Amino acid sequence: MSSSSSTLSHLSLSLSSSSFIHKPNFLYPTTIHYLHFNPKFVSLSTKRTICASSSSSSSQLMDPFLSKTQPPIPTTVHVDLGDRSYPIYIGSGLLNQPHLLQRHVHGKRVLVVTNTTVAPLYLDKVVDALTRGNQNVSVESVILPDGEQYKDMDTLMKVFDKAIESRLDRRSTFVALGGGVIGDMCGFAAASFLRGVNFIQIPTTVMAQVDSSVGGKTGINHHLGKNLIGAFYQPQCVLIDTDTLNTLPERELASGFAEVIKYGLIRDADFFEWQEKNIHALMARDPNALAYAIKRSCENKAEVVSLDEKESGLRATLNLGHTFGHAIETGVGYGQWLHGEAVAAGTVMAVDMSYRLGWIDDSIVKRVGEILKQAKLPTTPPETVTMDMFKSVMAVDKKVADGLLRLILLKGPLGNCVFTGDYDRKALDDTLGAFCKS
Amino acid sequence: MSSSSSTLSHLSLSLSSSSFIHKPNFLYPTTIHYLHFNPKFVSLSTKRTICASSSSSSSQLMDPFLSKTQPPIPTTVHVDLGDRSYPIYIGSGLLNQPHLLQRHVHGKRVLVVTNTTVAPLYLDKVVDALTRGNQNVSVESVILPDGEQYKDMDTLMKVFDKAIESRLDRRSTFVALGGGVIGDMCGFAAASFLRGVNFIQIPTTVMAQVDSSVGGKTGINHHLGKNLIGAFYQPQCVLIDTDTLNTLPERELASGFAEVIKYGLIRDADFFEWQEKNIHALMARDPNALAYAIKRSCENKAEVVSLDEKESGLRATLNLGHTFGHAIETGVGYGQWLHGEAVAAGTVMAVDMSYRLGWIDDSIVKRVGEILKQAKLPTTPPETVTMDMFKSVMAVDKKVADGLLRLILLKGPLGNCVFTGDYDRKALDDTLGAFCKS
Repeated sequence: MSSSSSTLSHLSLSLSSSSFIHKPNFLYPTTIHYLHFNPKFVSLSTKRTICASSSSSSSQLMDPFLSKTQPPIPTTVHVDLGDRSYPIYIGSGLLNQPHLLQRHVHGKRVLVVTNTTVAPLYLDKVVDALTRGNQNVSVESVILPDGEQYKDMDTLMKVFDKAIESRLDRRSTFVALGGGVIGDMCGFAAASFLRGVNFIQIPTTVMAQVDSSVGGKTGINHHLGKNLIGAFYQPQCVLIDTDTLNTLPERELASGFAEVIKYGLIRDADFFEWQEKNIHALMARDPNALAYAIKRSCENKAEVVSLDEKESGLRATLNLGHTFGHAIETGVGYGQWLHGEAVAAGTVMAVDMSYRLGWIDDSIVKRVGEILKQAKLPTTPPETVTMDMFKSVMAVDKKVADGLLRLILLKGPLGNCVFTGDYDRKALDDTLGAFCKS
Repeated sequence: MSSSSSTLSHLSLSLSSSSFIHKPNFLYPTTIHYLHFNPKFVSLSTKRTICASSSSSSSQLMDPFLSKTQPPIPTTVHVDLGDRSYPIYIGSGLLNQPHLLQRHVHGKRVLVVTNTTVAPLYLDKVVDALTRGNQNVSVESVILPDGEQYKDMDTLMKVFDKAIESRLDRRSTFVALGGGVIGDMCGFAAASFLRGVNFIQIPTTVMAQVDSSVGGKTGINHHLGKNLIGAFYQPQCVLIDTDTLNTLPERELASGFAEVIKYGLIRDADFFEWQEKNIHALMARDPNALAYAIKRSCENKAEVVSLDEKESGLRATLNLGHTFGHAIETGVGYGQWLHGEAVAAGTVMAVDMSYRLGWIDDSIVKRVGEILKQAKLPTTPPETVTMDMFKSVMAVDKKVADGLLRLILLKGPLGNCVFTGDYDRKALDDTLGAFCKS
């Protein structure tokens, strides 16, 4: 069966009365037809999908025999980067589908990099998924301390030590199991070990699932700034088992939403409006709402990364609020504020500055403040971070070019932004003055 | 004027009576026409040149007006890697030609990475070459301790510290000024700083000029093995000013010849025969002999790297003698033996093993021993490195794949080799037994 548009139309019609949309206030935009992990239904791609799931997958699912004997095929978002392209699998129970991981393991040796929080919850499950029915593969693991404050060279060396002591070779595969810190560190270790080995991401936080695990940015912090040492290094695949969010602390959950909200603001007004209507469902961990937000976020990120892998321009727009946010994280000390919390306050500052420049109207300022509050995210930086601290950290931001700090600012109707160094310095000073005590 | 073959033939004929071939025993193979830094002559490419100097350069040199007013155009070997291609400039006095460097500097900030030995000799000269007539560029420098024992993460962090404290940004350029250790560390720093900045190599040792500066291998050592952490990262250009060899200690000079000899053995029998005839001229630092050896080595390396940048096969052949050699360096302690000294002894061991396997005849064994002795290079490992030490270090070699150690061994007539894990283990044991006390 082909996944022609007429077929899709038919299917989307058949869905309107399904049990899927189970809350009256859980509204999907009319252009989006989304089916979550139910083998009865085709995994339809949305208008915004970079590369739809293959038609063979869709037709498999429509086969009544196959649907009874095979596990559900996950939603797949493809990151299109030529010979470095890879799939993002999104779904419930994906860690119970060993073939998804095993097809991307090259060689016979695997090193799982995880942390003290995630290891007790999911390490055994991942080792099982890597080895079930596959006696040839042996798995080592290294368990790092948990937290942004450990995203440093000393901790990274523990990964190299383990890999070398275990005599891993060039055909080994590194697997990142955890949040953004683990993904970034494991990815940089994979990029650098023997000048590069294969790499798989299994993100277990919203933050990692919607943002950091996708796109190949890896690295560690320096005590003078975040992510100053690293590499662009793409994984073989990203496997997002949404069940792992069941164990995520509430603060971590909300932190991830800061990045989800970002996609709406910079490039996807429909998605932002969907978020405004469904923020309570997201906070209540409605699995369908979460899965939709993750998928739509990954699609947005995949599209941007495909167009600008090395961040020569467009990709920088994904850093809305991050320059202010990095200054907050550095100023307050890594690990005190979660990344998304700092990004949330940073986003409010970027939006404030955009408004001071006359680039957006005040309705956007209000809507941003409102949705962040509903997500229980901070909307101001901590009092301890002074204007001088902001300026000092922002001076070593990666987006400085030839001495000029470029920022991502909103401009125009909702869903539009610019990445520019061409702004009135007074607006930046005024924003810092408005949000800092001194 | 075009550089058509008829023009080239004409020029090569006109050279046969020039003063260039100034020693009767200094014999060039008949297929090679080489002109060294003399503006009267075209910089002819040899049969083996990967990509000849551009015709516009050649025609410039033939212009009698330009030849009087412009500095000599250096011999150029191109490394052909698509959008990562770059030139290797080879010549005397190239650091006095600022445009060669300045055309490859992007942005306004440069960080020169060098060491305590090279800085007093050449740092001022390089800073002058980077800034003369170019007020927009500012240069920082970081001076590292000299020696393989400092090729580690702690020393690498000093480069990052300096770059971050100097607020260098993504448009900065890192310049490696020194031998192989500096080139490898600066290259890895450039690959990792802000996920990648521009990079220029100015190698000042034979070892770096003929081998390590070309091809984009960068990295640092781990206490359990050499170059286990790093990246493939290509420079913008390599600038080889052969005058820098005037200050090179004799032991360093000889160390570099180990790699020159390697090119002959693995793929260029004509070059090996030339070396046998000219080893005394090389040891006496005859500038033309040195320049020829450097150029021909770079051509060989550029060809191999162009065909196999990431070392999936062919490129590994450049590591003849290196697996044994790395074990020697690790076993005896970094910095005790120079890299080329360890490679020389390792080459003898690889040749011995090739002979035990029946893959080469004993004339090659004798010729290798002879030329290494004439180059004052060691032909046996130090007594302190035991068989167990060899086996332990070789087990973590980057060429191990799925537990199998692959080696580069000679096979067939001079100039032929294989990269294989398919050999009789007894031959390896016998070689280790013959060269180790225990």
